[in-house]
Amino acid sequence: MAGAWSIADHRYMARAIVLAKQGLYTTNPNPRVGCVLVKDEVIVGEGFHFRAGEGHAEVNAMAQAGDLAKGATAYVTLEPCSHYGRTPPCAEGLIKAGVNRVVCAMVDPNPQVAGRGIQMLESAGISAESGLLEAEARALNPGFIKRMETGLPFVSLKIATSLDGRTAMASGESKWITGAAARSDVQKLRARSSAILTGVESILTDNSALTVRAEQLGLAQAEEIVKQQPLRVVLDSNLRTPIDASILSQPGRTLIATISKDAVVIEKLQAAGAEVIQMPANQGRVDLVALLKHLAGEEQCNELLVETGATLAGAFIDAKLVDQLHLYMAMTLMGSSARPAFQLPLAKMSEQVRLKRMDMRMLGDDMKLILKPLYGENS
Amino acid sequence: MAGAWSIADHRYMARAIVLAKQGLYTTNPNPRVGCVLVKDEVIVGEGFHFRAGEGHAEVNAMAQAGDLAKGATAYVTLEPCSHYGRTPPCAEGLIKAGVNRVVCAMVDPNPQVAGRGIQMLESAGISAESGLLEAEARALNPGFIKRMETGLPFVSLKIATSLDGRTAMASGESKWITGAAARSDVQKLRARSSAILTGVESILTDNSALTVRAEQLGLAQAEEIVKQQPLRVVLDSNLRTPIDASILSQPGRTLIATISKDAVVIEKLQAAGAEVIQMPANQGRVDLVALLKHLAGEEQCNELLVETGATLAGAFIDAKLVDQLHLYMAMTLMGSSARPAFQLPLAKMSEQVRLKRMDMRMLGDDMKLILKPLYGENS
Repeated sequence: MAGAWSIADHRYMARAIVLAKQGLYTTNPNPRVGCVLVKDEVIVGEGFHFRAGEGHAEVNAMAQAGDLAKGATAYVTLEPCSHYGRTPPCAEGLIKAGVNRVVCAMVDPNPQVAGRGIQMLESAGISAESGLLEAEARALNPGFIKRMETGLPFVSLKIATSLDGRTAMASGESKWITGAAARSDVQKLRARSSAILTGVESILTDNSALTVRAEQLGLAQAEEIVKQQPLRVVLDSNLRTPIDASILSQPGRTLIATISKDAVVIEKLQAAGAEVIQMPANQGRVDLVALLKHLAGEEQCNELLVETGATLAGAFIDAKLVDQLHLYMAMTLMGSSARPAFQLPLAKMSEQVRLKRMDMRMLGDDMKLILKPLYGENS
Repeated sequence: MAGAWSIADHRYMARAIVLAKQGLYTTNPNPRVGCVLVKDEVIVGEGFHFRAGEGHAEVNAMAQAGDLAKGATAYVTLEPCSHYGRTPPCAEGLIKAGVNRVVCAMVDPNPQVAGRGIQMLESAGISAESGLLEAEARALNPGFIKRMETGLPFVSLKIATSLDGRTAMASGESKWITGAAARSDVQKLRARSSAILTGVESILTDNSALTVRAEQLGLAQAEEIVKQQPLRVVLDSNLRTPIDASILSQPGRTLIATISKDAVVIEKLQAAGAEVIQMPANQGRVDLVALLKHLAGEEQCNELLVETGATLAGAFIDAKLVDQLHLYMAMTLMGSSARPAFQLPLAKMSEQVRLKRMDMRMLGDDMKLILKPLYGENS
């Protein structure tokens, strides 16, 4: 089908992608989806999915179009669903509304239902295509897609360092390496994530709350966004999280992943507001892959943000579990006694972890790089 | 005088600055200077200084203008000289040629002669002004200006690191962190420098030649440029430079700065091609400030490029001797066992060395930052 689309097709799909982005911080655990209905070269309806349980993009676009949907072309960033969930299938809705052509950016990433929506449309005599601006549409939902395709969340590791690669002085002092603009960007990263993971060491050192704070978000919809706080996850093999830890008294849920079976401590932590889950052990610590599978499977976690110290950051890199590194660099030198960003003992240049630069920009005086680790593509 | 210049004045001075840059790699130890002669709104002569001993910018512009210089305005990026050196004073030449106005970007940075050229012109009844595009003109000659104003060279420290701030594996293995474009940029840095300084450890580890290589320079004038190799300086307190070190057999001069008085070793090094100079000691090592003074005073060193390992790099930063840091960063992680860029033991965030970003760009897959250390401006 690729190559058969007109300039107008591209323009309307691009608009649908812009619409989808309006759900960036709120659709969790659903994907971000946008839809545009076009009749006689006029947009007659636009919609996007805002929040799970509320209308899908197609439904919202059809509501706006009303009778004008009849004979229209629908541009959707994701194949219309074909199953009865909290809402009826959108493919059925489009058929009932009488659209005569549907263009999708991508098919459903869930291999069990991929193509069914398009089949349903075609069976009803509607022209249905897929693949227009697919790369752009996939970029809307890296986590949802990865979860559907692999059963794992999309893992972003966030690190703030000096130019000489340090995250804190030897004493642990680290406030503040980066400036307000970088910290606001981290808030946006948190807000789009299904869950935020940290290690108990960070809780003990920094007493981090790991919440999304409306006033630091700098977004018009901030108050709406913070109503659904990302799930907080603490890796705590030996249950050292203090019961008065700040993270336990925040709005939203806190999950403590452990290999400890100490019923007394577990009960105290539960009384303090935590949910405690047992994970398989791997070399005396919580097995990271098992935890990621649990988060994707039981918690519908699409995008997981890891905010942690050098040991756990190094372990995630070493286990090749990081999909994207968000590196905030302050224009400063913290010196050779300061703590490294990654506890990662490599001996040879051939073992280095090469990264692909996806984005680079300034945030105030700080620099931000988004990088993709190229595991196994070392020179 | 500022503010009194016309748009045309700005345009001609900007052209003079562009001309001056053509001497970027060759005027050493002289400053880079450009000159434009304008008569009746037409450029009648252009010139720049190419090499010490050859014509100054004004002389070259006057030669091109011939009789048309009479009644012209001269735009010069630096106040015309007033002394008899290898060539007669340019101020006198401009008077003889009959120009009726001289606009300078800046006065001579040598406090002992500053303003004399302008005085000489004014005494001859010629309108003489200074200060047009002064910041841009000063940027042509950071080293020459600093040497004249302070008796020290302008020190650029070059470091190539991974994103986690490492320069080599624990074993010393470091080839190659950065790619060909970054290495070619380092060649340009070397080529514009009066001298390149390294520590004996780098000689022992990497056997660096520290030469400018025409084929890596990527410049049309490469063959001309490499004829005058920058002075090579090795900090070698205890005279450990091997007599078969690559640096000693390269074209151009190699200076070994030491506090050792071992006549036997000195004689061997001299026989191998080195010049050995005695420097005062500071805590058992060559005194860095004394060496910099020597290089500026005895060697007319304008821009000094420091290419060295962590210990010496840290010492230069710690002594607040670095004017500019050229940081090449490869998109890779080398891990926490690898060598740091700066041996710089700092204990508190208040001791961090904040830097001002002057430039940021990509060179192939690598990133280059030019940074100015903000000594004493820490938060």
